[in-house]
Amino acid sequence: MGTAAVAPWKQLLMNAMQSNSHLKHSSYFQLATIGINGRPANRTVVFRGFQDNSDKIQINTDSRTHKIEDLKQCPFGEICWYFTDSWEQFRINGAVDVIDGSNPDPVKLQQREKAWFASSPRSRLQYVGPYPGLPSLGEQSSGESSLDNSTGPVDAFCLLVLNPEQVDYLNLKENKRVNFTTRQSDDSEKLWNSENINP
Amino acid sequence: MGTAAVAPWKQLLMNAMQSNSHLKHSSYFQLATIGINGRPANRTVVFRGFQDNSDKIQINTDSRTHKIEDLKQCPFGEICWYFTDSWEQFRINGAVDVIDGSNPDPVKLQQREKAWFASSPRSRLQYVGPYPGLPSLGEQSSGESSLDNSTGPVDAFCLLVLNPEQVDYLNLKENKRVNFTTRQSDDSEKLWNSENINP
Repeated sequence: MGTAAVAPWKQLLMNAMQSNSHLKHSSYFQLATIGINGRPANRTVVFRGFQDNSDKIQINTDSRTHKIEDLKQCPFGEICWYFTDSWEQFRINGAVDVIDGSNPDPVKLQQREKAWFASSPRSRLQYVGPYPGLPSLGEQSSGESSLDNSTGPVDAFCLLVLNPEQVDYLNLKENKRVNFTTRQSDDSEKLWNSENINP
Repeated sequence: MGTAAVAPWKQLLMNAMQSNSHLKHSSYFQLATIGINGRPANRTVVFRGFQDNSDKIQINTDSRTHKIEDLKQCPFGEICWYFTDSWEQFRINGAVDVIDGSNPDPVKLQQREKAWFASSPRSRLQYVGPYPGLPSLGEQSSGESSLDNSTGPVDAFCLLVLNPEQVDYLNLKENKRVNFTTRQSDDSEKLWNSENINP
């Protein structure tokens, strides 16, 4: 049992990323949301780093995908991040901020722009591709569209920022599990508690 | 677009399992549910086979874990199964049947017993271990408990059976995505439609 202002699971997560970094898929995790039909939804997404020096987790996505509607109706998400080499799992629950081009906050628009330029020119291209999830028209138009490297974020580009409130850490090699929870301090800072629990 | 009585995604899934079978973690996937707090929940579980010759997916779990309460309140789950070597993703949505020792249906109790004996003696032991998620009492009692190989399912052993209603298949190497949906035929058989959609 302990209390900390700096997220105590963040170092564990960075260690896991480091020890699994030889695997391309080690930056992939599954993000669960609640669909507008009231059923759970779950898909693989890519870790795009922590926001600045915080413990907030960034994900790039296409604003034309279902998860955007999902999050507008129920803003909570749970990441399940399993590291296949070190046998560690992080379940990270929190509210997700959806930042698209219509966001009124100039700081957030700047974060979105930063995320856009941090992604590869190749991955930027998918945001000018056909509408995801709509019936495919047969012919692949891959490679037809192009974007100048200096072009800023296109309409479909959306930055998601998950603000962790609870983290369940499981280490299968050590048969160890830790539950991290938050509470607000008097000056509304996020304070973390940790507790060892049975796996 | 096509209609079929035999689940057309099942062969795709079996091919993916085959081509990724050299990876221990290829039988692991993430199961999302809706928590009793109304937030999404997500965790890694192990594929325990299809039920008989159907397309229903079996998962073993401990009846003392949160997902049991989750599923009793909202019976739907979504599996996200990403194959790290072939770059294929299956998102499988459906209702989950929770089969514990108190189930009134003798056929289901038999399925639960079959699943128990199909699991390794070592994995059976976890169901007589300390209550998952409760504060850990410090000393590890690993290896202390034991079970006779002929002992049937213990109270905490629970079989989950997900009955797929919708499957979203994504192949990142071929940049191909197929949506499989069901409808009931007149004799209430499950009929599958498939449609190519934009990735």
